[in-house]
Amino acid sequence: MNALDRLVTLFSKLPGIGKKSAGRIVYHILDSSPALAHTLAKELTTLHQAIRRCGTCGGFTEADPCNVCSDPNRDKSIICVIENAQDMRIIEEGREFSGVYHVLGGLIAPLEGVSPANLSIDKLLNRLDGVKEIILALNPTVEGDTTALYLQKTLKNYQIEITRLASGMPVGGNIEYIDKLTLSRSFRGRIKI
Amino acid sequence: MNALDRLVTLFSKLPGIGKKSAGRIVYHILDSSPALAHTLAKELTTLHQAIRRCGTCGGFTEADPCNVCSDPNRDKSIICVIENAQDMRIIEEGREFSGVYHVLGGLIAPLEGVSPANLSIDKLLNRLDGVKEIILALNPTVEGDTTALYLQKTLKNYQIEITRLASGMPVGGNIEYIDKLTLSRSFRGRIKI
Repeated sequence: MNALDRLVTLFSKLPGIGKKSAGRIVYHILDSSPALAHTLAKELTTLHQAIRRCGTCGGFTEADPCNVCSDPNRDKSIICVIENAQDMRIIEEGREFSGVYHVLGGLIAPLEGVSPANLSIDKLLNRLDGVKEIILALNPTVEGDTTALYLQKTLKNYQIEITRLASGMPVGGNIEYIDKLTLSRSFRGRIKI
Repeated sequence: MNALDRLVTLFSKLPGIGKKSAGRIVYHILDSSPALAHTLAKELTTLHQAIRRCGTCGGFTEADPCNVCSDPNRDKSIICVIENAQDMRIIEEGREFSGVYHVLGGLIAPLEGVSPANLSIDKLLNRLDGVKEIILALNPTVEGDTTALYLQKTLKNYQIEITRLASGMPVGGNIEYIDKLTLSRSFRGRIKI
């Protein structure tokens, strides 16, 4: 296998990139100035040294604690529990949430061998001082539902409000094309206007 | 901008990768062992040194001439003219063609400032000794049609058969969903069975 094929194979293993897209990417890099390849290589080489886990929330960060955990303007009494560090990035881009985060590092999935002990739940229980609300921002899937239920039970003896992100029709969606489960959730979660 | 954001920005500039996919990729790399990042970085660093253009056909290769041009079993009397080096990879995967290639390096597109002089047409004219057929494997687009017409005119004084890839309904396609132009081409190019 030559250098080109090796790189195509490597790229095609990254999430969301198939064999054809990987080919397009590598040919694009070859067609571009070598500076692009070198910049990419440099950033990849230093990535794991530059970025670590925040000791408090578990998000990826250059400084520990991370920008969010160390920001005096963030409301430390609201913790948003998320599956992985990337969800933090997406929620931050929405600029809707002004509390802090807690990264679980996965969802409970017995069939895949992920039990509550594999998630950073103990760490969450250790930072509940002064916390008034925990928002479970977990995917509306079987694993997300299971994890939400488990956390709800675990946290029920604390004087903390537990909420979960609304699930229903996406904005701009069309009732005609919505699946039954989502429609049923939209009905159950209907709000007074 | 921290190391993570810089890498997301770099990835999002590659073809077919949007901001969100770039995020997913970089978080995947961070979640994986540092070996993945280092292998990627190493291959990217050496890519431009390892891969050059074949002096004959213009394809990307480790050795010059390339595997195809130097293969005694390939039929040198049939040249398949393609837009870019990546098309060679795709056609080779099909295992349908046993001739050799010629990479034009683009298509004639006056509005984008690409004239015949910008393409490697002179080089094609210099390798016509003993050639019996030239297959124009160019996209069925305005630019592809223009380039095919130009090459047809340029080559008409040579005793060479000029052909072009059939254009029509994709295999597995559905007449209901096919656009008018493609349907019209399918009619004009219909074959006797």
